[in-house]
Amino acid sequence: MTQTPASPARFDVCAVGNAIVDVLSPCEPAFLDGRGLTPGSMQLVDEAQSADLYAAMAAGVEASGGSAGNTVAGVGSFGGRAAYVGKVAPDQLGEVFSHDIRAVGVHFDTAPLEGGQGTGRCLINVTPDGQRTMCTFLGAANQLSVEDIDAALIGDSAIVYLEGYLFDPAPARAAFEQAARAAHAAGRKVAITLSDTFVVARWRAELLAFIEASADIVLANEAELAALFETEDFDAACDRLAAMVEVAAVTRGASGSVIVRGDERAAVAAFPVDKVIDTTGAGDQYAAGFLLGLARGLDVADAGALGSLAAAEVIAHWGPRPMTPLVDLAKSQGLTLGA
Amino acid sequence: MTQTPASPARFDVCAVGNAIVDVLSPCEPAFLDGRGLTPGSMQLVDEAQSADLYAAMAAGVEASGGSAGNTVAGVGSFGGRAAYVGKVAPDQLGEVFSHDIRAVGVHFDTAPLEGGQGTGRCLINVTPDGQRTMCTFLGAANQLSVEDIDAALIGDSAIVYLEGYLFDPAPARAAFEQAARAAHAAGRKVAITLSDTFVVARWRAELLAFIEASADIVLANEAELAALFETEDFDAACDRLAAMVEVAAVTRGASGSVIVRGDERAAVAAFPVDKVIDTTGAGDQYAAGFLLGLARGLDVADAGALGSLAAAEVIAHWGPRPMTPLVDLAKSQGLTLGA
Repeated sequence: MTQTPASPARFDVCAVGNAIVDVLSPCEPAFLDGRGLTPGSMQLVDEAQSADLYAAMAAGVEASGGSAGNTVAGVGSFGGRAAYVGKVAPDQLGEVFSHDIRAVGVHFDTAPLEGGQGTGRCLINVTPDGQRTMCTFLGAANQLSVEDIDAALIGDSAIVYLEGYLFDPAPARAAFEQAARAAHAAGRKVAITLSDTFVVARWRAELLAFIEASADIVLANEAELAALFETEDFDAACDRLAAMVEVAAVTRGASGSVIVRGDERAAVAAFPVDKVIDTTGAGDQYAAGFLLGLARGLDVADAGALGSLAAAEVIAHWGPRPMTPLVDLAKSQGLTLGA
Repeated sequence: MTQTPASPARFDVCAVGNAIVDVLSPCEPAFLDGRGLTPGSMQLVDEAQSADLYAAMAAGVEASGGSAGNTVAGVGSFGGRAAYVGKVAPDQLGEVFSHDIRAVGVHFDTAPLEGGQGTGRCLINVTPDGQRTMCTFLGAANQLSVEDIDAALIGDSAIVYLEGYLFDPAPARAAFEQAARAAHAAGRKVAITLSDTFVVARWRAELLAFIEASADIVLANEAELAALFETEDFDAACDRLAAMVEVAAVTRGASGSVIVRGDERAAVAAFPVDKVIDTTGAGDQYAAGFLLGLARGLDVADAGALGSLAAAEVIAHWGPRPMTPLVDLAKSQGLTLGA
């Protein structure tokens, strides 16, 4: 499916995702129950539902988010070369998103949406155990389209990383397909994250078809993997995934992750954390370390170790992106970042 | 100067301040040096300077701020009854500010500024030792005026709390005077914080005159106290302050605080913290506990202990307001909150 790339890539990772600002507030489990929210899930809401939920939420903090945006911010924090494609509006939250992703050195020049809805936002309620439950108003992010896909940019990235959440808006799904074609035409790798069990449930057949036809690398957690293959048999699900892609990483929360490649199954430990504050972005940061490692040609276990380190950093504080440069943390832990 | 209040107050504390959203980013000390910023200070910037600094800052998080706004949010987090007077614009940051302050139960109905500048923002660079250095673009907050002062609201609050930063914009300074008159006319107490050494330097004579004529309670840190009386002799400065007001609390960072009342000097210990992350809001949260304690008729040492507890909560995470309900923390520490 892939060709030998013509030249070294300018970027390690180029991500395509929903450009979103997070609003993070603490809550008790009863708050989720009372509003019919499934703990740990992401659901889409419209502008009115978003306003209604926000009015009921506790005071909180705002931080740039979006799953794949978090991942490339993590790649940038490791000192990697990353690019991002996603749609904001020309408003204050859009400025915040654009500032934060560029501030970690990520190339971001998708044209903002003029005259449409505001920048997307994700309302995140975090229970005392650190688990996050998300309600996303996509806003401008919903309008990402094939016109936003720059084939030259994608072709100059070792890995293009696609956010499973983008299966929800139809125009973005088309952009997604186009990005995969551009990557393979240039002999680059295509990675995808399954994002969420409900996304997998909504788009299971389409995701399976896309992975089979276009993905070289898959990121998932064990619940998403179970949903994709409709089985609770972890080993069987790994085998099925291994038959479809070159390599996959399946995260298992505090139990670490398993990297799947052909017949190989490499277990990677989670990195210890004093106290889990907010798990928002844990999977996204794992993906940052893992993808950067693959792009740099590291052994899969070393790539997974970078993922574990980045996930540990982000769950120890509020917000979905690193607050301490991951390049410094990797150095202090003696982890290699490759060339 | 004060009369006996006619009836119990509806609110424990009503604060008048600059309504501002904080943008908090980590930085190295060299970043401050390179831009001529005095570590630990607050300086005012215009919109262009704000945009220029923001472009150079690291990725960060946004959180509702404003010194007195943080304080009443803390009062609300303790379960106290609080109100706030301050000016936002009808924009996304204004929505965030309004949401967050109301979400902790604070009464806030100042009319937003129509057709003017955007909601004020404070760009905060935080060094690895947790110290914050602030550059504030006041925006809409700058337009607070006497028309925003509701004498009935102020008169129904046990303490009106005035933010020293409001000495900078002239219309707000007038609002400030009017609020003090309304409080005293209703037999309530007037509290003021000195806010910042540079504010004290800019408005020293005016602040001294205001405190002498109108303040019953003063909050300051030791550097601001030294600047106010132009002396490094801490005890002498406390004596001069004691001669001007009923009670004052002077914070001394990790050394705790000293409460000054007539000839009495009560030392209050700081509450231990595992790791200081971001000191933004430490003084504001101390003020929350101290003022709520005074409003509830606690002993000054017990009021100071509430202040120490609230300050410890806020410096252990990013952002200037409590993320854990202070009422729960006080309960777990066996601290009394009064009636």
